[in-house]
Amino acid sequence: MIYLDNAATTMMKPPCMVDAVTKALTTMGNASRGAHETSLSASRVIFHARKTIAELFNCKRTDHVIFTSNATEALNIAIRGAIKPDSHVITTVLEHNSVLRPLYLMEKEKGISLSFVNCDDKGNVDAADFENLIDDKTSAIVCTHASNLTGNVVDVKKVGEIANRHGLLFIVDASQTAGVLPIDMEDMNIDILCFTGHKGLMGPQGTGGMCIREGVEVETFKCGGSGVHSYDKEQPRDYPTRLEAGTLNSHGIVGLSASVGFIKETGVENIKAREEMLALRFYNGIKNIDGIKIYSDVEAATHTGVVAINIKDYDSGAVADTLATDYGIAVRAGAHCAPKMHEALGTVVQGAVRFSFSYYSKEEEADAAIAAVREIANE
Amino acid sequence: MIYLDNAATTMMKPPCMVDAVTKALTTMGNASRGAHETSLSASRVIFHARKTIAELFNCKRTDHVIFTSNATEALNIAIRGAIKPDSHVITTVLEHNSVLRPLYLMEKEKGISLSFVNCDDKGNVDAADFENLIDDKTSAIVCTHASNLTGNVVDVKKVGEIANRHGLLFIVDASQTAGVLPIDMEDMNIDILCFTGHKGLMGPQGTGGMCIREGVEVETFKCGGSGVHSYDKEQPRDYPTRLEAGTLNSHGIVGLSASVGFIKETGVENIKAREEMLALRFYNGIKNIDGIKIYSDVEAATHTGVVAINIKDYDSGAVADTLATDYGIAVRAGAHCAPKMHEALGTVVQGAVRFSFSYYSKEEEADAAIAAVREIANE
Repeated sequence: MIYLDNAATTMMKPPCMVDAVTKALTTMGNASRGAHETSLSASRVIFHARKTIAELFNCKRTDHVIFTSNATEALNIAIRGAIKPDSHVITTVLEHNSVLRPLYLMEKEKGISLSFVNCDDKGNVDAADFENLIDDKTSAIVCTHASNLTGNVVDVKKVGEIANRHGLLFIVDASQTAGVLPIDMEDMNIDILCFTGHKGLMGPQGTGGMCIREGVEVETFKCGGSGVHSYDKEQPRDYPTRLEAGTLNSHGIVGLSASVGFIKETGVENIKAREEMLALRFYNGIKNIDGIKIYSDVEAATHTGVVAINIKDYDSGAVADTLATDYGIAVRAGAHCAPKMHEALGTVVQGAVRFSFSYYSKEEEADAAIAAVREIANE
Repeated sequence: MIYLDNAATTMMKPPCMVDAVTKALTTMGNASRGAHETSLSASRVIFHARKTIAELFNCKRTDHVIFTSNATEALNIAIRGAIKPDSHVITTVLEHNSVLRPLYLMEKEKGISLSFVNCDDKGNVDAADFENLIDDKTSAIVCTHASNLTGNVVDVKKVGEIANRHGLLFIVDASQTAGVLPIDMEDMNIDILCFTGHKGLMGPQGTGGMCIREGVEVETFKCGGSGVHSYDKEQPRDYPTRLEAGTLNSHGIVGLSASVGFIKETGVENIKAREEMLALRFYNGIKNIDGIKIYSDVEAATHTGVVAINIKDYDSGAVADTLATDYGIAVRAGAHCAPKMHEALGTVVQGAVRFSFSYYSKEEEADAAIAAVREIANE
């Protein structure tokens, strides 16, 4: 099978990641829940994971790296725990439901108002548009680093500069970019960076987290056992315990730590270059085929490994089925949990067929996908 | 090392569990996020996991098995999503902070009032005491199945019968008992059963969940991508999607599914018998040593594999350190996230040394622990 659904989850993982999880499954105690060696070594592993992730994203505080079960949980915690009630929030039409639904909930329950930065006909947002939407009540910008549907990248450095200049909280959803594009929280003025572990970071499913800048307050989401301050009625206030309750997914985190180590050794710039090359190779192979509509701005200066297309007026789900059944190519079709993006692209009914490459994807796989698309289009 | 901290996390796992996770890490797509084989097989694996867990606990609805990252998350969802604001709730002094802190939060933010069932001098609660605390405003009982500190078991069948007779919501924390004691939601009248995957169920850390009885309403806790109904502004209402947002920990869940399969093959009754035997062996070996105070009612008809003790007036942390350093025995000391239980036992300052056995623990390990306790007590 040719797996080109890496924007949903990467399937090829660094061997060191798999080894780390396998070993931990039979040797690891419960972090922060004991003073014997297995528990202590689990605690050290978790600390090391925080450290390596803090370094990857230039988060100045290792103890402000919070582990969650996925990016969705991190975004729920960030949006619902850090945005001021009754304020105005700016976001974009590119967002995934993991951003939109927590924002809609805040709209309904906490009285926030929302403005959306639109995209142009290539699916790109202009960072300057954020500034035009700022008013007296604006307190925050919540923005994806790249569209999960098109792979188009938002200039978060520019948006961060605007947020910083206006004293706004800046929350970034890096689900599609962590491990794939360079991210520097200080340089980009990011207050809260939310990431998942199982996509570009090539770790296990069930991992993810958030990095919080010094001085940024995020309220407790889940409460419970903390291993410290057991006699307090409330969750302890110190990060990371403030936002982590119960036993962590240490088996997963040790894997994430290993895969992040692999990424740092490999170099994010090299991973980025490879994914861009593969996406561009695929794009160049299909762009002149009759009846192909491409939604991704693959020729932009920066792009992820995602190329979303449709073939004629064929239902995207039917195309994905044909790709899977007749060509053994795994892609994703349909609505991609990004309703406003589909509205902007006019693909609400048709959906879109998303090809997504990873660092481990091969040139031959891109070529096989090109040939398959050509055949389906010429049928 | 002799690992006797299984109430924190089991470290010896069924080999089939480790194999399942290891295999999944390089072959599994994203469940419910595509129509190609890797995604479909991930969806099937998740469905099978729900089914096998529903069978273990006699939950009538496979789609009412919800996956969470741990029992704490399940308890947050259950307590904060199903208990009526401004009502009266009955719980016990045995509870872990994963029950207490969400209840305290509901007290503060949703106006609930709390009553606690006390324990006797053996650390046991009398099921009849729940009935005595019921008043006009009582809406729910939240109760652990067994104390994480003492291993003493609550007669949840009797409590469930009382809850049922008075029309009360009955939430059970099975963190210490799932996989160790028989649990039958129908027979025990349990409305919401919360469990963790990495203790008695012998699955990976980062897994857990809740089983919800037909007709019981639990509100959405996290919202985000659902893979279905992508154009709705709110999280879909159908279980399990109502309570699951974002990518599941499928790599962990496939392991949990395998270990639950192992438990069903082995038989919960056999696991229970083995843990009780080991706890009793240890208990009988130490009970007559001078200066030993035992907090667990190990001679009760039903007990988990937990025995909590203190030696003279020695600080429990110091004893645990000695056990780890001089004897290579891993136990847990200190406060155990169960503040009211320590208050009831008078161990707030001293804490307690908790020995906890698993199905995989050996008789020689219990004997080595007995010898170590004797030496420390005789020093």
